[in-house]
Amino acid sequence: MSMDMTFLGTGSAYPSPHRGASALVLRTDGECWLFDCGEGTQTQLMKSQLRAGRITKIFISHLHGDHLFGLPGLLCTVSLNTNPDPQQNLNCVDIYGPRGLRKFLRVTLGLSGSQLLFPYAVHELEPTSDQSPEEGQLSLEVSGFGHLHPQEQPGRTIPFDVSNDCYLLFEDKKFVVKAFRLFHRIPSFGFCVQEHDRPGRLKIEVLKEMGVKPGPLYGRLKAGEPIILENGFSVLPSDVLEEAVPGRKVCILGDCSSVVGKEPMLMCSGADILVHEATLGSEHRERAIEHGHSTPKMAAAVARACCARRLVLSHFSQRYKPSSLQKEGDEDVSELKRQAEEELQDSSVEVILAEDFMTIPIPPRRQVITS
Amino acid sequence: MSMDMTFLGTGSAYPSPHRGASALVLRTDGECWLFDCGEGTQTQLMKSQLRAGRITKIFISHLHGDHLFGLPGLLCTVSLNTNPDPQQNLNCVDIYGPRGLRKFLRVTLGLSGSQLLFPYAVHELEPTSDQSPEEGQLSLEVSGFGHLHPQEQPGRTIPFDVSNDCYLLFEDKKFVVKAFRLFHRIPSFGFCVQEHDRPGRLKIEVLKEMGVKPGPLYGRLKAGEPIILENGFSVLPSDVLEEAVPGRKVCILGDCSSVVGKEPMLMCSGADILVHEATLGSEHRERAIEHGHSTPKMAAAVARACCARRLVLSHFSQRYKPSSLQKEGDEDVSELKRQAEEELQDSSVEVILAEDFMTIPIPPRRQVITS
Repeated sequence: MSMDMTFLGTGSAYPSPHRGASALVLRTDGECWLFDCGEGTQTQLMKSQLRAGRITKIFISHLHGDHLFGLPGLLCTVSLNTNPDPQQNLNCVDIYGPRGLRKFLRVTLGLSGSQLLFPYAVHELEPTSDQSPEEGQLSLEVSGFGHLHPQEQPGRTIPFDVSNDCYLLFEDKKFVVKAFRLFHRIPSFGFCVQEHDRPGRLKIEVLKEMGVKPGPLYGRLKAGEPIILENGFSVLPSDVLEEAVPGRKVCILGDCSSVVGKEPMLMCSGADILVHEATLGSEHRERAIEHGHSTPKMAAAVARACCARRLVLSHFSQRYKPSSLQKEGDEDVSELKRQAEEELQDSSVEVILAEDFMTIPIPPRRQVITS
Repeated sequence: MSMDMTFLGTGSAYPSPHRGASALVLRTDGECWLFDCGEGTQTQLMKSQLRAGRITKIFISHLHGDHLFGLPGLLCTVSLNTNPDPQQNLNCVDIYGPRGLRKFLRVTLGLSGSQLLFPYAVHELEPTSDQSPEEGQLSLEVSGFGHLHPQEQPGRTIPFDVSNDCYLLFEDKKFVVKAFRLFHRIPSFGFCVQEHDRPGRLKIEVLKEMGVKPGPLYGRLKAGEPIILENGFSVLPSDVLEEAVPGRKVCILGDCSSVVGKEPMLMCSGADILVHEATLGSEHRERAIEHGHSTPKMAAAVARACCARRLVLSHFSQRYKPSSLQKEGDEDVSELKRQAEEELQDSSVEVILAEDFMTIPIPPRRQVITS
């Protein structure tokens, strides 16, 4: 299964002509999952090689405008490009995000008279009180506007799973997706996309020795089913399968100055890609923390703690222009990479600076051949 | 006083890389008034020669997303660029638009935890039932979320003035600004910005004959005050002033398939500039009307009825790319101009096709010299 990640916006605070507001797409076999949707994301999508109509799931890390304000417009535009054939059974777009997101969409889509041609559902995460300073906790009534939007299907309210220190968003045949808590000025979340392990290859030589011939029995063994041969011998899958191929793991963190709890580091352990914000360089560390943000060094410490393979820095202050557009006197974005690399110098973590429209392939992990 | 108009978005339905969503700025002596604020307007502003911080008033023609979804982000970004000095007495940004706009801003700014460094007030126009089909009339409770946003000052609710067939938004030393009703899928409005007339020049020769010497008396006459000379004779301003110089008039219509009522045509009479939507060409007339939109011919008929000097067509379907980006097989945007010109062939109305970042100067009217 192919998998890659495309950055649509790598700037913080607001979209600029040089860096869009936060948004990235994780694509697997043509299906697109959108993480955050700052203003202008739909236009960035049009400029990219991706197709907005392929978005099946949307994840909003937190409700700050630079991660959210593009969502109503994106949904409207996807709808305009949707086949209005009522015979077509359109899939529901699942939207995950903090409490308040449901109301945000009901009010923006409702007041603007926006009708969508596809159903959507908002699944809200219940933040805990230790994710933000008191003033950052929603004081607004979020329960008003209680009626569903005409195209809204009832969504789940996903409680915090205390014993596992996470939120289970969903699990299907290919993936399990969880969220975890981050500390920011308002409640913010990180997402962990874990691909299921694939069974290892069949050890053909061993099977031949056992007298098992190619055919349906191979499929049953590969599917993890024990079989009994005509001679009465039983064969366990573990006898004839190479080690399972570990699934890929992609971790995408919203704005934060720290991760809340200990389990998330284990959950993200060995991530193929860890996307972490690095709004400001070390020289602005105090200011970064005051605003609930991280420096490259802080991001690197997280990557180190969970032994990520690649750390992608993003969500840069708009003062850091992309290298190709930097002028004399501009603060140098490559300095942010240097700061993270310095922190990681005795590790094997690779550091990447995100840029708008950058696509990073996430190749399958290699099969471990034991025989 | 200098006056010009800059188009920031000339596309309908959604922002594309070729045409932004609806927004234009009317600038007078450096002060900017923003008309509509589709998604991406703040980025278009950054690409233009205008400064978002100069925006003092915002007018929203209707609540469709392509005219509205950029507003919360724009306010947040203007705030980020505002001097946080609390000693500075920041002016209130006045925002005018249909009922529902106040709630839209309270919910979007409130749920996103957006604090502004300047105050704002929303003045809502009460639509009438003949501005849209029944299904386009707000069914949502707009009175909820009744508490003001922390930076919100109480705004006015502007009722429809039945006898004058308009809404009086405000009048100051330079301008009177009114709104009028348009028919669209949801209630939509047009805006008429009327500059006050300036007194004509003093007839120096006549004054000399009367024995009035240059000095303070000249100023009083110019200000419209009668004076009494030492010889007992009185001089009326009308005796010694050329005809008043008519103020400029700029009319900007939101989405519509027609103007509601008769007075608006008189109000817009002789407009220096009339901005009218022309979403689709005549060959798509039925579809345009079905969606509450106009063709160039329909726009031209309005311009003719109110004897506008210049008709600017805008809000083009995204199928019409700017001329410079058109490829073979694309529908030709210049055909829209041709259709309007055909309708206006025996008139003196000039037709202009709006493009993103086009600036149109609006020079003062000439003084009429009678002697």
